[in-house]
Amino acid sequence: MEHLATGEEMYGWAAELFPFCRSLTGPGVRQTLDYLGRLIPGLRRYTVPSGTQVFDWTIPDEWTIRDAYIADADGHRAVDFRAQNLHVMGYSAPVDRVMDLAELQDHLYSDPDQPDSIPYVTSYYKRNWGFCLTHRQRQSLPPGLYRVVVDADLQPGVMDYADLLIPGQDSREILLSTYICHPSMANNELSGPVLAAALARWLASVPRRFSYRLVFVPETLGAIAYLSRNLTGMKQNTIAGFMLTCVGDDRAWSYLPSRQGDTLADRTARHALRHYAGAFDTYSFLQRGSDERQYCWPGIDLPVCSVMRSKYGTYPEYHSSRDDLSLICASGLSKSFDLHRRMLSIIEANRLWRTASYGEPQLGKRGLYPAISTKNSYLEAQKMVDVLAYADGGLDLIALAEAVEMDALSAAAIFDKMAAAGLVKSMDQ
Amino acid sequence: MEHLATGEEMYGWAAELFPFCRSLTGPGVRQTLDYLGRLIPGLRRYTVPSGTQVFDWTIPDEWTIRDAYIADADGHRAVDFRAQNLHVMGYSAPVDRVMDLAELQDHLYSDPDQPDSIPYVTSYYKRNWGFCLTHRQRQSLPPGLYRVVVDADLQPGVMDYADLLIPGQDSREILLSTYICHPSMANNELSGPVLAAALARWLASVPRRFSYRLVFVPETLGAIAYLSRNLTGMKQNTIAGFMLTCVGDDRAWSYLPSRQGDTLADRTARHALRHYAGAFDTYSFLQRGSDERQYCWPGIDLPVCSVMRSKYGTYPEYHSSRDDLSLICASGLSKSFDLHRRMLSIIEANRLWRTASYGEPQLGKRGLYPAISTKNSYLEAQKMVDVLAYADGGLDLIALAEAVEMDALSAAAIFDKMAAAGLVKSMDQ
Amino acid sequence: MEHLATGEEMYGWAAELFPFCRSLTGPGVRQTLDYLGRLIPGLRRYTVPSGTQVFDWTIPDEWTIRDAYIADADGHRAVDFRAQNLHVMGYSAPVDRVMDLAELQDHLYSDPDQPDSIPYVTSYYKRNWGFCLTHRQRQSLPPGLYRVVVDADLQPGVMDYADLLIPGQDSREILLSTYICHPSMANNELSGPVLAAALARWLASVPRRFSYRLVFVPETLGAIAYLSRNLTGMKQNTIAGFMLTCVGDDRAWSYLPSRQGDTLADRTARHALRHYAGAFDTYSFLQRGSDERQYCWPGIDLPVCSVMRSKYGTYPEYHSSRDDLSLICASGLSKSFDLHRRMLSIIEANRLWRTASYGEPQLGKRGLYPAISTKNSYLEAQKMVDVLAYADGGLDLIALAEAVEMDALSAAAIFDKMAAAGLVKSMDQ
Repeated sequence: MEHLATGEEMYGWAAELFPFCRSLTGPGVRQTLDYLGRLIPGLRRYTVPSGTQVFDWTIPDEWTIRDAYIADADGHRAVDFRAQNLHVMGYSAPVDRVMDLAELQDHLYSDPDQPDSIPYVTSYYKRNWGFCLTHRQRQSLPPGLYRVVVDADLQPGVMDYADLLIPGQDSREILLSTYICHPSMANNELSGPVLAAALARWLASVPRRFSYRLVFVPETLGAIAYLSRNLTGMKQNTIAGFMLTCVGDDRAWSYLPSRQGDTLADRTARHALRHYAGAFDTYSFLQRGSDERQYCWPGIDLPVCSVMRSKYGTYPEYHSSRDDLSLICASGLSKSFDLHRRMLSIIEANRLWRTASYGEPQLGKRGLYPAISTKNSYLEAQKMVDVLAYADGGLDLIALAEAVEMDALSAAAIFDKMAAAGLVKSMDQ
Repeated sequence: MEHLATGEEMYGWAAELFPFCRSLTGPGVRQTLDYLGRLIPGLRRYTVPSGTQVFDWTIPDEWTIRDAYIADADGHRAVDFRAQNLHVMGYSAPVDRVMDLAELQDHLYSDPDQPDSIPYVTSYYKRNWGFCLTHRQRQSLPPGLYRVVVDADLQPGVMDYADLLIPGQDSREILLSTYICHPSMANNELSGPVLAAALARWLASVPRRFSYRLVFVPETLGAIAYLSRNLTGMKQNTIAGFMLTCVGDDRAWSYLPSRQGDTLADRTARHALRHYAGAFDTYSFLQRGSDERQYCWPGIDLPVCSVMRSKYGTYPEYHSSRDDLSLICASGLSKSFDLHRRMLSIIEANRLWRTASYGEPQLGKRGLYPAISTKNSYLEAQKMVDVLAYADGGLDLIALAEAVEMDALSAAAIFDKMAAAGLVKSMDQ
Repeated sequence: MEHLATGEEMYGWAAELFPFCRSLTGPGVRQTLDYLGRLIPGLRRYTVPSGTQVFDWTIPDEWTIRDAYIADADGHRAVDFRAQNLHVMGYSAPVDRVMDLAELQDHLYSDPDQPDSIPYVTSYYKRNWGFCLTHRQRQSLPPGLYRVVVDADLQPGVMDYADLLIPGQDSREILLSTYICHPSMANNELSGPVLAAALARWLASVPRRFSYRLVFVPETLGAIAYLSRNLTGMKQNTIAGFMLTCVGDDRAWSYLPSRQGDTLADRTARHALRHYAGAFDTYSFLQRGSDERQYCWPGIDLPVCSVMRSKYGTYPEYHSSRDDLSLICASGLSKSFDLHRRMLSIIEANRLWRTASYGEPQLGKRGLYPAISTKNSYLEAQKMVDVLAYADGGLDLIALAEAVEMDALSAAAIFDKMAAAGLVKSMDQ
């Protein structure tokens, strides 16, 4: 039976994943993958040891954060990691010192433009420590001495990631990739893994022509590590791919193309957005910002684009404490799930079709034509014949649907009917 | 001597052809072809027996209609085929019954949107009978008993059609196709056969580089039958083709492309319309409706488009008794004849040209350049040199004319002059 | 040291060249080439004897003009060549006659639309004589007898021209062509040779990847003669070319494409105009008027376009005595020099680039990335990574710059830095 997650279920997963303190590495990533593993049977886990070279990069030490705070002279925690994990700068090195406010300022991060947001800041590759807080709180800190504690480890360990290959009739693959390295933020990032989980469960429940590769990695370095281990096979098999990110709110639809710009993934995304989503914003590849940066890199050249709701970097809550569970909603998640299922369904149904008859077929003798010809009846039949009239073996389903000004899934239904009547043949498997 | 029919002559032919009760088959078709045979020496006649399989279709029984009427209780003919042959539904089976108005209604066809028009209705492939009448008359029929008579035969016979091959120096062909299966209607359809006749007579009277195939068939099934017998040769030889239909009124110019959209026929049609007709409406191939449906079918792929006046399906009188001799006019027919002659002349003159000189030629020593160079004189000569400056052997006449922003026939005249002066060479025969 | 002429120097050269009475042939051309030879070390001089066939043309007799005037009955010179060399029609044959005003009118040229301009008129190929004067003066000439004297020779001699090949590391050439056959006119023509001289001096002073061919010829016939002697090598080596004409005023920027329209020269010109000049007028090749007529002729097909200020034929002073030294200025010449240097610098830097890493490189470990990742820092780094992200080996510098919405010289600076860091490789020499 087709397994269709509801928006409420997806929202519930996001809510449970929200508190984990994810980062590039460390226990928060493992907690997240453990949770996803319970949702997605067969999810495979991998580790890459610190120090491993992956293409141009080296896996850094693993970061374990236990506690962090800034306490005033009375021992009162002015800034407390336990209340909000964004308070500690990602990859902060351990520290336990007393210093005055002036010295502390060099380690504080706030956003004057959004004085009530705690910004999200990391320092993966330069050893440092820091605290993030609202600008309003920062300005209200009285002068004086503060005790600063980061109770963390930065030592050799592993980077974790996971994937799942759902086989189809065909070894050709569709890539669905998302990331699991941001602490408590909802649209960017939890909407992505949650949609990936819903799609994985759905895909496992339906017949599949193609195979599906779902990838859950820390952004950038995780994708680079993943590609360094899987590139050859992915280049051979991947016919389309989608980044799953920023799919949880219900304010906008966004499309970010692949570098090549007209791959099967791009054509599918644009067609589906046009016919099933309504208005959408088209961004340039110059405005990319997630793992399409790696997947579309010259020499890697995977056909990966993104269909998002409010795109990262464009909404005010992005990369701050305000990107919380109130920003996403069951309705937003559900519509994203629906649109992605339609995109995958289009690709599943995408074939080169060729008419089997010379000249128009006689639909009437097959019960497919109105018996009496009036002024408009041939126009109705023509509508039906249109999909055949363009089926010259050189156009795929998407191109055929666009030629006859229909949506691809409706055109696919007509082709299935025509194929059953022997009037059209598929040129491929 | 060049044989140029006048608009009045063409209108006269249409007027004489108008009363014949044409249909898919039967005596009306033969009367029509007999008449055309007198206009066009050498017209060849063919028959296809009922029951013959032509591609996906079967030739139906032949229909002979002698009389048909609906008489009221007094024996008065309320609806009378003898007054207007559109009153009987095409391919009506014989009937002679008395019935009340309620039962009769199932066999009546009228158009509430055009209450004074008799609609044109047929039922070729489902045995039935019916009468067409104005909606106004239908509403005024009093209740009561009516005698309904269709004195017709539906029995094995033939489907008739005709063609003519006018040979040129070259076996490459231009197809001109029209149809002869509609009863008394003028723009759609008699304007088509009448223009075909005028073009046939003109073509026979002038030197020809290419050969011309004129086809007179019942629409759809006739074209399918014709293709089933002639496809191989037509695919080998046809370089351009035009459907001749709806060319008799003087209200609009219309262009309907081939499926491929940029064949020699399409390029010629667009160029000629732009330069010689003025404003014109461009339709999509999705709005097709005549035998380009067969000629452009995948696998048949003939380069056939249509240049029309008011396109079928777009004008209110279409497929009704109001598409009568008052809708077409000598002026409309004459302008259509003129435009089609220009299109054929462009194709006749269409060659790849290549300049014979390195650098600009010295037009002056050939008497082709103003002797004194003033500020503007080089601009005039440049205009003359322009056609040479683009003649790189890769552009044909139409492309060259468009490059220098001229019409093709004027450019052809310059190329002829330049060829005579040895300044340009044709790359083809 | 880089040799950069100032606008004032260039203006000074134009002022010194202005008085020479240039024509298709004769001493004025030699004076001009002598002067240019002093500016441009290594300039090579050539002659073609009268009567020589060059492609479709024949070199005419050489014209030497010593004096010319129209004197009234008192011996007063009403029109005097010594005051303004445009007064004598170019290539006027010798004459010494007395005639009345009526007969004289046939030999007078003036422009009623610009009654205070002396028009520029020549009669190279038909033996004739004439005088050019303002329309106002012409109308004020009293009736009576006039003595008409043209003291000139028209006899076998030579046509002069010059060129310079500045070798680079590579035998591939860039063509810079200008003309030296117009008497005292400033924008059309002296701005061209003056810019050519400044570019020649600059090119000789800087390292060069490519070779440069500078051509100084009488317009049309000179270019044809030059091509007749150099065509094979030029076709083998020329990768881009620019006509240098009408580059001296400061009123507009103009672009005239090559016939092919998208050569390296065209792409460079459009890119440079867009990024470094601001608004510019794009003309059609149909509006050409200088030696691109020959260079772009079919079969010659050199990739030559023009970047001009106010284009010939478009400004009111064109081809008249008002195209004088007041029309051009140091600023106009200097900006033209600057833009042409940028165009040549773009071509010098134009390479196919290919990223050397799989996936994004780690800029941080090379000191090229901000250490702390905030909301916007990845956007800054992305800007830097953009040029790499498109460097797939199939795009040249100009295409890459346009893909990332930068100007080519700025992009070239980034590529040089990235190449030094080993992150990108050039696909060509």
